[in-house]
Amino acid sequence: MQVLAVTDVSRTEAPLDPREKGVPGDAGTVPLAEVAGRGWRLLDEDLPLPAAVIKVGALRRNSAWMKQFLAASGGVIAPHGKTTMSPALFDLQLEDGAWAITLSTPHQLHVARSFGFNRVLLANQLVGRSAIGWVVDQLNADPAFEFYCLVDSLKNLRMLAEIARQKRLSRPLRILVELGFPGGRTGCRSVEAALELARAAQTLSDVVAVSGVEGFEGIIRGPTEPETIARVSAFLDRLVQLAEACGREGLFAPGQVVITAGGSAFFDIVADKLGAIRLDQAHVVVLRSGCYLTHDAVMYAQLFEQLKSRNPDLSQRQGELQPALEVWAYVQSIPEPGRIIVALGKRDISFDQMPVPAAWFRPGDGWSETRPAPAEHKVLGLYDQHCIMAAPEASPWKVGDMVGFGISHPCLTFDKWRVLHLVDDGYKIVGSVRTYF
Amino acid sequence: MQVLAVTDVSRTEAPLDPREKGVPGDAGTVPLAEVAGRGWRLLDEDLPLPAAVIKVGALRRNSAWMKQFLAASGGVIAPHGKTTMSPALFDLQLEDGAWAITLSTPHQLHVARSFGFNRVLLANQLVGRSAIGWVVDQLNADPAFEFYCLVDSLKNLRMLAEIARQKRLSRPLRILVELGFPGGRTGCRSVEAALELARAAQTLSDVVAVSGVEGFEGIIRGPTEPETIARVSAFLDRLVQLAEACGREGLFAPGQVVITAGGSAFFDIVADKLGAIRLDQAHVVVLRSGCYLTHDAVMYAQLFEQLKSRNPDLSQRQGELQPALEVWAYVQSIPEPGRIIVALGKRDISFDQMPVPAAWFRPGDGWSETRPAPAEHKVLGLYDQHCIMAAPEASPWKVGDMVGFGISHPCLTFDKWRVLHLVDDGYKIVGSVRTYF
Repeated sequence: MQVLAVTDVSRTEAPLDPREKGVPGDAGTVPLAEVAGRGWRLLDEDLPLPAAVIKVGALRRNSAWMKQFLAASGGVIAPHGKTTMSPALFDLQLEDGAWAITLSTPHQLHVARSFGFNRVLLANQLVGRSAIGWVVDQLNADPAFEFYCLVDSLKNLRMLAEIARQKRLSRPLRILVELGFPGGRTGCRSVEAALELARAAQTLSDVVAVSGVEGFEGIIRGPTEPETIARVSAFLDRLVQLAEACGREGLFAPGQVVITAGGSAFFDIVADKLGAIRLDQAHVVVLRSGCYLTHDAVMYAQLFEQLKSRNPDLSQRQGELQPALEVWAYVQSIPEPGRIIVALGKRDISFDQMPVPAAWFRPGDGWSETRPAPAEHKVLGLYDQHCIMAAPEASPWKVGDMVGFGISHPCLTFDKWRVLHLVDDGYKIVGSVRTYF
Repeated sequence: MQVLAVTDVSRTEAPLDPREKGVPGDAGTVPLAEVAGRGWRLLDEDLPLPAAVIKVGALRRNSAWMKQFLAASGGVIAPHGKTTMSPALFDLQLEDGAWAITLSTPHQLHVARSFGFNRVLLANQLVGRSAIGWVVDQLNADPAFEFYCLVDSLKNLRMLAEIARQKRLSRPLRILVELGFPGGRTGCRSVEAALELARAAQTLSDVVAVSGVEGFEGIIRGPTEPETIARVSAFLDRLVQLAEACGREGLFAPGQVVITAGGSAFFDIVADKLGAIRLDQAHVVVLRSGCYLTHDAVMYAQLFEQLKSRNPDLSQRQGELQPALEVWAYVQSIPEPGRIIVALGKRDISFDQMPVPAAWFRPGDGWSETRPAPAEHKVLGLYDQHCIMAAPEASPWKVGDMVGFGISHPCLTFDKWRVLHLVDDGYKIVGSVRTYF
């Protein structure tokens, strides 16, 4: 992606196709490298709506923000690639110093490997005979491929070992023992259970390397914000205990140990807690946030406010994360006063929480730039292809006006688009990125 | 799609790509026509999971079911293509007699036109200068293109006329006047308002043809099922009034008049009510259901039970709609007794209601076929990539078992997949279909 100033622009991705959402119907196919040259501008109605756009300025600032945060905290990042599933955006993250790419599923591994990403952290157990076999084949075929996956059960551990032996894996498979918590998602339910699993893994050291420990604090919630923070901190303390106990028992394989946690909500606490770990062996603290890159206008916007209140000097030191991703749509119908139907729906934007109208534009009426959405224009709900809004009876909006929505959650917005357009501050299209969901 | 026995198999679609979800990572690219020859079988772990499969037997039976229903009711169908956005499935629907394809957005029109579908009903106003211009260009370029769109506002009507005149539209644009209801989605709020719009449209007859009326009853709900039915019926009565008033006033353009309503919940009532319409002019009653084709295991399964209770002889006459679409995934982790994490999430399956485990299979253990999911295994919630289930502490499920989920809603499951596989009753892959969301 030249527009993102990434060095490796040799990757081949399919041209834009008019059969893709957000791509002009009469453009023919357009190679990604030629998108900027088309001179398209969102506000000139050059894109069919709905369309998803990423503000390049905000994207770059967010990426630099995380780089600066990590420089101060001492950790590294393996940003969760599942958020965007966009290799061009992975490139930007690696340019800004990312240590690896984190992924969730075998399919996401296929994508990352097809684009040549060499250090990958699968933040899940690797399950299924074909998926395990595929990873072993990749490792055998490419000495430069550095792969980590989680383990939380003896059954999975034995399956990994069995297939690794069958396929004569050229070097041990790096596993991270996963610590969870009662009532949570995956992961061993106690430090002791995780330690036992690590001990079992050590007995399989011909094919398995215990390369570190992992936890995910991002779904921990308490009844109040301070209680949430207390629970997150206590969980991270247990993760530190696990790592230090593995160290004392000599369970880690030779080489650098990986200590990893950290979603997009509490990465400051993760960096702080895991940064204090004491191991004799060389180790790296790996955060895995994914949403910081585009940020949002609802869920992570709220969580970022909390993060700032925990770190009073942070904004002053390095500014704010900014919402970079917007979805634009037309006012489709104003069928009765105070009720506005906009032409976007559950297939276009995240809806675990409702999107918020951020920008407004009236095409063909001499406006040179967007205006803020007027007050009291509120999304009530989304159908598959329609958005229902409440507004004052005297709303100035008209059928055919354009509305730019701030999103509530990046992960569940990116996956609704095969193509997102990069825009400058005037909504000129300066490039496009593909996703591989 | 030869496996669907559709006559036109000349369309070119991209081969399967290992970067697509549900496609084997080591398969290379596979032309759609060669998929069946690969001999893949879901239960042999030949697909990476999660994967979406459509049971061909159930799909064909559902398509035939609707054909039989329409033969008895006298209407025709323009199935809502937004459900599947799969041209191969549109083909099947046309083979089984569909009159047109219904669509929601300009993007969906691009897709349908690129695959050569000639009669298209846009169940929305056509909004935006570029979108209107594109449709006018298509009409001017292709005399065989028959296009209908809705109108519910004078503003939109005038914009259509303005652009049609600018671009010298070769024949009038066929519009359907949309009737809605107070508090509903789009559409004129009263018969009188709709009639006024039809009268205004008639004054633009050089570029606009009033070709019929439209309503959508699918989102009407009352506090009880009988009250819902009463409201749906009353709405359809108003739609009949509107059509008959337009007829009496001579507002319809020459040619066949289109009277259309009907989602997937109440199409029996629509066929009944609209079938009784009295017009001097030739007319066709067009239903627009989309979900019947794959049906589901939750939302439309419940609505179909209601439809059967309204039509006691229906099942006996023509059997049942059957859930044809399943999403399969591995048991990812059983971190504590009674809690099971399965590797599928909000990015893989509809989640307005929770999916239901339907089938269970243990690979590598000598099982020849699937078993029903055991009782009391229930989905509690979905994360982006994880499904949280509650189960008895003595659940027989193990990490690495495969689970097939019945879906809660076809529209919001199809849009999570670029490729879905067609399977026979033994889960052998007999073909694949592409979607264009």
